[in-house]
Amino acid sequence: MAKTTMDAAKREKRAKETSKKIQHMAEAVLAELKKQDNPALDIPVRALSNVSFSQKSKLIELGDRTQSREFFNVSMAKKFMQTFLVASACKEHLLETGKTTSIRDLYYMTKHTIRNSSENTFDDQVESDPIIEDLEVSLNALREELHLFAAKKGSMVGPMVIVDAGDEIDLSRMGSGGWSVPSITEDYVIQFKKSEAKYVLLVEKEAVWHRLNEDKFWKKHSCALLTAGGQATRGVRRLLQRMTRELKLPVYVLVDNDPWGLYIYSVIKQGSITLAYESMRMAVPEARFLGLRTSDFKRFELSNDVKIKLLKEDETRAKQMLGYPWFEHKQWQREISDMLKAGFKMEIEALSNKDISFVTDVYIPQKIKNKDFLV
Amino acid sequence: MAKTTMDAAKREKRAKETSKKIQHMAEAVLAELKKQDNPALDIPVRALSNVSFSQKSKLIELGDRTQSREFFNVSMAKKFMQTFLVASACKEHLLETGKTTSIRDLYYMTKHTIRNSSENTFDDQVESDPIIEDLEVSLNALREELHLFAAKKGSMVGPMVIVDAGDEIDLSRMGSGGWSVPSITEDYVIQFKKSEAKYVLLVEKEAVWHRLNEDKFWKKHSCALLTAGGQATRGVRRLLQRMTRELKLPVYVLVDNDPWGLYIYSVIKQGSITLAYESMRMAVPEARFLGLRTSDFKRFELSNDVKIKLLKEDETRAKQMLGYPWFEHKQWQREISDMLKAGFKMEIEALSNKDISFVTDVYIPQKIKNKDFLV
Repeated sequence: MAKTTMDAAKREKRAKETSKKIQHMAEAVLAELKKQDNPALDIPVRALSNVSFSQKSKLIELGDRTQSREFFNVSMAKKFMQTFLVASACKEHLLETGKTTSIRDLYYMTKHTIRNSSENTFDDQVESDPIIEDLEVSLNALREELHLFAAKKGSMVGPMVIVDAGDEIDLSRMGSGGWSVPSITEDYVIQFKKSEAKYVLLVEKEAVWHRLNEDKFWKKHSCALLTAGGQATRGVRRLLQRMTRELKLPVYVLVDNDPWGLYIYSVIKQGSITLAYESMRMAVPEARFLGLRTSDFKRFELSNDVKIKLLKEDETRAKQMLGYPWFEHKQWQREISDMLKAGFKMEIEALSNKDISFVTDVYIPQKIKNKDFLV
Repeated sequence: MAKTTMDAAKREKRAKETSKKIQHMAEAVLAELKKQDNPALDIPVRALSNVSFSQKSKLIELGDRTQSREFFNVSMAKKFMQTFLVASACKEHLLETGKTTSIRDLYYMTKHTIRNSSENTFDDQVESDPIIEDLEVSLNALREELHLFAAKKGSMVGPMVIVDAGDEIDLSRMGSGGWSVPSITEDYVIQFKKSEAKYVLLVEKEAVWHRLNEDKFWKKHSCALLTAGGQATRGVRRLLQRMTRELKLPVYVLVDNDPWGLYIYSVIKQGSITLAYESMRMAVPEARFLGLRTSDFKRFELSNDVKIKLLKEDETRAKQMLGYPWFEHKQWQREISDMLKAGFKMEIEALSNKDISFVTDVYIPQKIKNKDFLV
C-alpha cells in the first residue's frame, strides 16, 4: 500500500512538471498577445537535415535548428491552434486526471468542428501525430510524459521483482505467457524492486523467446528475458535503457541475420532518424549484438537448408547501412559486407535445424561465455 | 509444487494420447506395406465445398468428405512422405520431450536434403503448414496437442487466480501491462484456480483495454478483461471457450463498428471457414456482441466528427456478410444493413470524443445492464 502511494506521488510530481511546461508555453504566448506582438513558438526541426550521429554520445541526435510557428500567419495559424489544442487536452484530460491514452484516442478527443464554421480542428490523425512530436521536442518531454502511449508489444520473464502501477510482480513466476510489457515504462509506473539478473537478453522473435522460456534459460543463466516480437516498442526500449542505467545490466540482442535484424539492433542502440529527439531517453549505446551473424553459418556448421537468398531490397538496405556513420567501424563494415558477399540471410529459428534447443543449450551460452559479440 | 507435478502429469498424459494416435497411423501404414498393399491415409477435405454452418451447434463445421493420400502414387508420394516426416518430428522432438514450438521452427526442424538426391523434404513453409493442418484433422488433434503454437498476442487482467505452466498468477495484481496470454492455453498449461469474475469482456483494441485497465473497470464490475489487439489469436479463443465452459461465464465482445469488427466477432463465435475443423475446440457460440453498432451513433449522441466513410471494400465485405448463414437472423441482417445504409464506420475510440472514460463509465456498463447486445 505504501508502495502504491509512493508511485502515485511520483506520478503526480512528474505530471505537474510537464503541466507546468505547457502552462509556461501558453503564458509566453499570452504575454506576447497582450503586447500586441505576433506570438510564435520555436519548434526544433525534425528533419533529416537537422539530425546527426554524435560520436561522443554514440546517439542519433537532433540538432539546434528551429522553425518559428506564428499565430498571425495564414499558413501557420491552423497548426498554431492545433498545437495548443493538443497541449491543452494533454494537460486537462491526461496530466491533471492521472490518465494515459493512445495517440489515436487523443485525435478523437481533440477533433471537433470549429464553431460557426465547417472547418475541423483535425481531419485525420496524420495531422495530429506530428503535432504531438512538435510538442515533445518543444517541451523536451517524451510523449509518455504527456501521458500518451504507443502500441504495446512484448513479454518479459526473469529473476526479478518489479512493481507495475502499484502491483508487485514476480517475473520468475510468470508461467508460459510472461508479463506483458506496457507501453509506458517510466519510473512512475514501473519500479525495479529486486533483481538477481546478471544481464538482459532481448530476442527479436517471439517464438525464440518462448523456446528460451520453456527451457528456463533465464533461470539457469540468471537473466531478464525479453521479446518485442520484431522492432522494439517504446516501452521495451525505455525499459532496456532503465535496466542498463539503474540495474547496471549489460544488454544482449539476438536478431535474425538480415538487414531488418541489423536495423532493429541499430534502433535499440542509437535511436532512429525519424525520432532522433528521443534517443537520449530510449537508446542503449552499450547494447551488444549477439547475432545471428553470417559467420555463424560456418562456426556452427549449419546446413544449406537454412539459407534464404537475399532479395534485391535486402541488398539495397544492407548497402545503405554500410553508409551509416554508426556502422562505420570496420567490424560493422565487415559484418554487413559478409552478408552481402554470402548472398543469403538466416532466421534465428534456423538454429532449430540442428536441434530444437540448440539456441538455448549451445548458441547463446557459448557466445556470451566467449564474449563473442559486436558493440 | 504439488501443482506443478500435477500439470506435468496432465501434460504427459495428453502428449502420450497424441503420440499414440500418430503411432497408430504409422502402424496401419506399415501393416499395409507388409501385405504389399498400397498404403493410404484418409484425410478430411479442408475446402469450402466440405464446410457448412450447423444450425444445431451454431458452428462452422467440416463435413465428412475425405481424400486418399497414397504412397504408391507419383503425384502423392512426396506429400505422403512429408506427412510422416512432420508427424514423426512432432512425436519425437515435441511430444516425447514435453517441448512446444512454432510452425516456423517445425519447418526448419524437418527441412533437409533427401539422401543421394538434390531434392529437399520441404522447400518452403507454405508446404509444411498444410501438412500440419492435414495431421490435425486426420488425428483429430489440435495443433496445440501436437505441441505446436501459433503467434501469441493479447493481455489479460481480472479478479482471478490462474496457474500457468505451474506458476500461480494473480490476475488482479498485474499492473498496467497485464498477463501476456500464451499461444497454448490448453488445460495442461493453464488452470483456473480461483475466480470471482462474473463475465468476460474481450475488446478488439489494445488501447481500449488499456483505458479499461487504467480505470480498473474489471475490479469495479468483477470481470475478466482481455484483448488480442485485433483478430483473436488461437490462445485467446481457446481461453475464451474454456472460461465459458469451465467457469460458466458469459463472454461480451466489443469491436469497432466496421465489417472487420463484425468478422472478428464472427470468428470468435462460430469459427472460420479456413479452419472449420477447429471450431469445436475454439468457438464460443454464446458470445455476445456488445458493439459498436451503427445505432450507437444516435443512442449515445455521438458527433459527426467520429464518422469514417465506408470504403468500397467495406461495402463489398458487408454485403458478403449479409449472405453468411450465421448472420441470416433478421437482427444481424438489420445490423449489417444499418451500417451499409448509414455509409459510415466508427472505431471504439470514437467514444473518447465524448469523454476519455465514456467507454468505462457509460457505454459498457449501460449496455450490459440493459442487456443491450446481439447474440
